[in-house]
Amino acid sequence: MVMGHGGGGSLSAELVEHLFAPAFRNEVLDGLGDSAVFALGGARLALSTDSYVVRPLFFPGGSIGDLAVNGTVNDLAMSGAVPAYLSCGFILEEGVALELVGRVAEAMGAAARAADVVVATGDTKVVDAGHGDGIFVNTAGVGLIPDGVDIGPRRARPDDTVIVSGSIGVHGVAIMSKREGLEFGVEIESDTAPLSGLVAAMLAACPDLHALRDPTRGGLATSLGEIAAASGVGVRLAEHALPVPETVANACAFLGLDPLYVANEGKLVAFVPPEHADAVLTAMRAHPYGREAVAIGTCVEEHPGMVVSATRLGGTRVVDMPLGEQLPRIC
Amino acid sequence: MVMGHGGGGSLSAELVEHLFAPAFRNEVLDGLGDSAVFALGGARLALSTDSYVVRPLFFPGGSIGDLAVNGTVNDLAMSGAVPAYLSCGFILEEGVALELVGRVAEAMGAAARAADVVVATGDTKVVDAGHGDGIFVNTAGVGLIPDGVDIGPRRARPDDTVIVSGSIGVHGVAIMSKREGLEFGVEIESDTAPLSGLVAAMLAACPDLHALRDPTRGGLATSLGEIAAASGVGVRLAEHALPVPETVANACAFLGLDPLYVANEGKLVAFVPPEHADAVLTAMRAHPYGREAVAIGTCVEEHPGMVVSATRLGGTRVVDMPLGEQLPRIC
Repeated sequence: MVMGHGGGGSLSAELVEHLFAPAFRNEVLDGLGDSAVFALGGARLALSTDSYVVRPLFFPGGSIGDLAVNGTVNDLAMSGAVPAYLSCGFILEEGVALELVGRVAEAMGAAARAADVVVATGDTKVVDAGHGDGIFVNTAGVGLIPDGVDIGPRRARPDDTVIVSGSIGVHGVAIMSKREGLEFGVEIESDTAPLSGLVAAMLAACPDLHALRDPTRGGLATSLGEIAAASGVGVRLAEHALPVPETVANACAFLGLDPLYVANEGKLVAFVPPEHADAVLTAMRAHPYGREAVAIGTCVEEHPGMVVSATRLGGTRVVDMPLGEQLPRIC
Repeated sequence: MVMGHGGGGSLSAELVEHLFAPAFRNEVLDGLGDSAVFALGGARLALSTDSYVVRPLFFPGGSIGDLAVNGTVNDLAMSGAVPAYLSCGFILEEGVALELVGRVAEAMGAAARAADVVVATGDTKVVDAGHGDGIFVNTAGVGLIPDGVDIGPRRARPDDTVIVSGSIGVHGVAIMSKREGLEFGVEIESDTAPLSGLVAAMLAACPDLHALRDPTRGGLATSLGEIAAASGVGVRLAEHALPVPETVANACAFLGLDPLYVANEGKLVAFVPPEHADAVLTAMRAHPYGREAVAIGTCVEEHPGMVVSATRLGGTRVVDMPLGEQLPRIC
């Protein structure tokens, strides 16, 4: 087990394919989405979980508590579900200050209220000093999928417009600069945010959204690669259209990172039927978390499963899946 | 933060009361059950979560994988829900053997099939060596509550019969003897088991079960104390009726433990209207996980919120809530 196995890239995918899928094999798990989707008692539900091990616990623009709520809210929203109830599991290290746990819980409570979800149940375990790392948080969440909504990574189609909701690479650079004590002129704040309201606005403009994903670990490149692989389409990006803020570009140049692979915590990428792309963009730009939404590419029949970027110089390059995360413990 | 804050006793209760409840305040969380219960899309659902940090990972009778599935299945079942879908979050320590992770996943898969639930979604994080402890597992689960079932810790009433499904203290002693390298004549195996089938059999005999709980951390004493406090009844135990196997009694005498406070992972305690007690006992004894079910006491109007035990010598003693767990990292 190496750090990359938790990085969301192809090492993570191997872990799922070779260890977890055989152990748990079932049709729901095979759906490949950020959430499991199933019917229960006549309701169509989504269920999702994430554990959070980010360091530091508090960083510019947010905290592990914000990530723990927004991350699970966003995973549910990416299946079109309206997030409703969250569970919360703490694994605390003996000796961690109660005051710190309280601050994380308060951040979670505030984030839950902002996302209009209820933290409905929880659990706390304590491990001996030296066998944990302060505070780990797991959240799981349940949401209700509205009738007629069918969003999934297999549904991308040739000619779909690929839209990203705003600037990329911000969360990863915020964490990295804080952790390494680097400064890049102005402080870069994490973009952590709940995206369920934005998805609702997009669905109102186009109920037939094909695929949605929030590009967290592994960045936009990984999300695009996963959807291309699942649906068998090619993705052609226009590199000049990628919304990379200058601060992120500078930091990435300094750190030797590619913004396409850096984690976001408040952005989504959408695969939209071309005839609805303008309406969806207009709806997104009217929402606080989609003001900078922009089309960044299209789906093609060529090179199925592959993401290719048209460079500024007129050439093309293949956008590979990363092996692991460039920045460990980013969420 | 001390180990006892994760022990399920009154230190845990203080953490919930003073830190988590104010941060997350909402009506569902205030329900005090092992699960949150709510309606979504017309379905009555239960949601529950637990993290598992048990050491060792494999022990006589089971593993962290069995606990992670059965524990969440049981929490759902204690609200009367039929467990359906589970999520699974791994926090792995860098350097842990992939083969070990695979064995845990396989144990989870087998336990899920035995409990008739689907592990539908998951997440893996890796933390640097020295900042975790091999494998931590979180599970959350969703279940459907059948119409007409209303089980909760506030519903115990005076004259209810208190029934336990079998011998107590087995899991805690199994872990402790393995961890400390102790032997007590025969090896004691954990009782980890899914109890949803047993609950279904009990509900068929009496749809109006009042309260159910699986006495894990903090043991039977804690579960009885929580239900007494939530419903405002007194509980009167007949100490001679408590099903403590001789091996557990001997181990507890040696270790200085009281079996009433030792964790179980495959037992439940039920508060049943007295007119249905015989029918429920008969149904339980016909089920593989309830063969040794026995009435251990009754609810009374006296000493509301308190558990009192009638000793073999004809006296009575108060059964207090423990401050923390006598045996840390038991689950």
